[in-house]
Amino acid sequence: MSNQPFADTPQPPYVAVIFTSTRTDGDHGYAAMGASMEALAKDQPGFLGIESARDSLGITVSYWADQQAARGWKQVAAHLVAQRRGREAWYQDYRVRVATVERDYSMRSSTIESHP
Amino acid sequence: MSNQPFADTPQPPYVAVIFTSTRTDGDHGYAAMGASMEALAKDQPGFLGIESARDSLGITVSYWADQQAARGWKQVAAHLVAQRRGREAWYQDYRVRVATVERDYSMRSSTIESHP
Repeated sequence: MSNQPFADTPQPPYVAVIFTSTRTDGDHGYAAMGASMEALAKDQPGFLGIESARDSLGITVSYWADQQAARGWKQVAAHLVAQRRGREAWYQDYRVRVATVERDYSMRSSTIESHP
Repeated sequence: MSNQPFADTPQPPYVAVIFTSTRTDGDHGYAAMGASMEALAKDQPGFLGIESARDSLGITVSYWADQQAARGWKQVAAHLVAQRRGREAWYQDYRVRVATVERDYSMRSSTIESHP
């Protein structure tokens, strides 16, 4: 995990990959995988940041400079998961949604400088 | 919270509102607010679903039929938060990102029927 909880994204547009998952019971190497996955993401071209939370559901949103960067990351991540045989071991189920962020705002900026 | 953890979204395109937040200590009416906020969202025009997780960071992604529906929800939610004076009481900080989902896939469909 990074030192700050929020991804320091630039002005839109940029790309968000929303990964929502339910886990299987047990670790099965998942924690180690999560750490190396995040380290790997940060080395990818076009990586902007990542935000993650989990309780009964897990949500990880990674941010990318453009669609090409997001697609590149998908291939790298899928390859890594396949190598570790993680898909069936780790997840009961998941959804991936790839989206273009068109506007954003923050608590401090929402009244005076929201990106349109 | 809904019975199923995943939002049952249609084929893209549709709109995702990604709300990421860090909380203040204490409840300050937040739990009651969260429940009524979700009930209210479901009554809004164009509501498609909602997914939520929290540990040190909270991430709630709500899904909407189009940009107009997402903007309508923003106004309703902001009004409700203002009524309850929640912004400063509940959140240390937050980010809101509004994005158009262009493609999605699931664990079961990812090899054979991902939406392009």
